Amino acid sequence: MDWLWQDGRLCPAQEVFIDPADRGLLLGDGLFETMRASRGNVPLLHLHAARLAASAEELGIPLPHDLAELHRAAREVLAGTGLADGAVRLTLTRGAGPRGLLPPEPCRPMLLLRALPMAGSGPAPANAVTAAIPRNERSPLSRMKTLGCLDQILCLRAALAAGGNEAILLNTRGDLACATSANLFLVKEGTLCTPDLASGVLPGITRARLMAALPVEERPLRRDELLAADEAFLTNCLTGVRPLLSLDGQPIGTGQSGPVTARAKQLLEAA
Amino acid sequence: MDWLWQDGRLCPAQEVFIDPADRGLLLGDGLFETMRASRGNVPLLHLHAARLAASAEELGIPLPHDLAELHRAAREVLAGTGLADGAVRLTLTRGAGPRGLLPPEPCRPMLLLRALPMAGSGPAPANAVTAAIPRNERSPLSRMKTLGCLDQILCLRAALAAGGNEAILLNTRGDLACATSANLFLVKEGTLCTPDLASGVLPGITRARLMAALPVEERPLRRDELLAADEAFLTNCLTGVRPLLSLDGQPIGTGQSGPVTARAKQLLEAA
Repeated sequence: MDWLWQDGRLCPAQEVFIDPADRGLLLGDGLFETMRASRGNVPLLHLHAARLAASAEELGIPLPHDLAELHRAAREVLAGTGLADGAVRLTLTRGAGPRGLLPPEPCRPMLLLRALPMAGSGPAPANAVTAAIPRNERSPLSRMKTLGCLDQILCLRAALAAGGNEAILLNTRGDLACATSANLFLVKEGTLCTPDLASGVLPGITRARLMAALPVEERPLRRDELLAADEAFLTNCLTGVRPLLSLDGQPIGTGQSGPVTARAKQLLEAA
Repeated sequence: MDWLWQDGRLCPAQEVFIDPADRGLLLGDGLFETMRASRGNVPLLHLHAARLAASAEELGIPLPHDLAELHRAAREVLAGTGLADGAVRLTLTRGAGPRGLLPPEPCRPMLLLRALPMAGSGPAPANAVTAAIPRNERSPLSRMKTLGCLDQILCLRAALAAGGNEAILLNTRGDLACATSANLFLVKEGTLCTPDLASGVLPGITRARLMAALPVEERPLRRDELLAADEAFLTNCLTGVRPLLSLDGQPIGTGQSGPVTARAKQLLEAA
C-alpha cells in the first residue's frame, strides 16, 4: 500500500490533501530530493537535507522540520509502504498562497515524503544526444533541485525521439553542464574532470562523494573534450554510476564502459 | 465559498483531490492561464484556450476538454464561487506518473479551474529594476505559460528588495524580454515597439490584441532603447495596461504615464 508522510502525519496516498492553492503546484515554487533507501532508512539523508536547506534558504522557504524529524519521516514512510530498499522522494513547497507571484509572508511550507520501489538493474548505459535547449547557468536555479523540470523533460523526450536514451545539456556559453538528472564526468589521460558548479550544474550528492574519494578537476568543459575523452559516466543518487558510451552517435573512447568508471562505481558502493 | 472545477466536476476547494503523484506538482509538468472574468463569463476564453492548446501540443499533453466545456467550466466555477467579475485561473498538468522525468504514455491530464476576486484598482504604475537572472530565450518554454515560475518569483522578490515594484528581464543575449508576468511595450517618437517572440516572451493575449489595434514594431530591443523611450508600459490579461515609469531609478520619458499608454488602455477597454 502506498503511504505518504505529510507535515508530520502518515496517511494513505489517496487521502492526502494537496491544497489546490499550493504554490508548488501552481508556480513550481519548491524543491525536491530523491534519495536512496536502504534497510528501511535513508543513509545519506543528512547530505540531502543540507542541500535542501541551502536552496530553501536562498529561496526564502523556511524548513518546517529538522533533520531528526526527516529521518523519522523517511523511516515511517518506508515502513508504511512496506519497502526496505528503494527510493524516497521528498517534496518541499512554499505552501498555499493568494493569486500572483509574490509569496505570502509568512508562508506555511508543505513537506511531503513518498517511498518508491526501484527497478533492480538500474538504467542501461547511456547513449546520449546533445540537447537543443541550453541550461541557463546564469540562473541560481540551475544549481538547485527545483520543481520546474520541464526543460529536462523536453530534452529527454527529444533524445528518445532521436534514438538515444539520455540528453547532455550545454549551458548558454556552450560548455558542458549535465545530463537530464545526473552529473557528468569524463576521463582524459587518467584525469577525471567534471563541469564546475558555475557551468550550471546541481551540486550532486554522488558527485560530491566521488570528489571526496578521487582527485577530480572541476572546471568548464567543452563538448569536444567529451567526444575526445577516454571514457565518461553520469552520476545520480538513485542510479549511482552510469557509463556514458556515446554522444550523438559518436563513441566516447572505446564505446565501452571503462576502468575509471568501474573504479568509481566500486568506490561508491564500498563507501 | 471557494469552489473548484476539476475535470468535469465542481467541488469545494477543501474536497478537491490533487494526486500526490501529479507531475504538475512534482515536476512543473504543465501549463496555466489566468483569465479575466466579466459578468459570470470569460469573454476571451477562446484566445486563452488557443494558446493553451498550442503549448500543450508542443509539450505532448493532450487537452482533455474542448472549448465549449471550458466555457461551461468557467461559468460554473464563477457561479459556484459567487463571483461575477474577477479572474479565473486554469491549471493543466500532465497528470500522475511513475517516478522519473519520462511522461507515462498515455498520460491522464488534470485540468483545474478556480475563480478568484480581483483587487479593484489594479497595481500601481511600475517602477522596475533590471533582473539579474536572464530569461532563456533559447528554451521554447520562454514562450509558454508553464508551471515553472520560480525564476520570475526570484526576479520579483529581488526587485522589491531593491525598492522597485516590478522587474524587467533581459534574455541571454542581453535584449529586453518582458516583466515578471507582463509583456513590455515602449514608445519612441510615436512608434510603438515590443520585443519579438524570439526574444523569449510569452505571446500575450493583451499584447496580441494591442498589435491588432495599433501598428507595433516587433523586434529585438535593447535596454538602452527603453531608457531612451518617450514612454513605456506593461500588458497583462488581468491588469490590462500598466504604465512603466522608471527603470533602475532612471525615469522613462517624463517619468509619468504618457498619451500612447492612455490610448492603449482606452482601445483595450473599448474592444
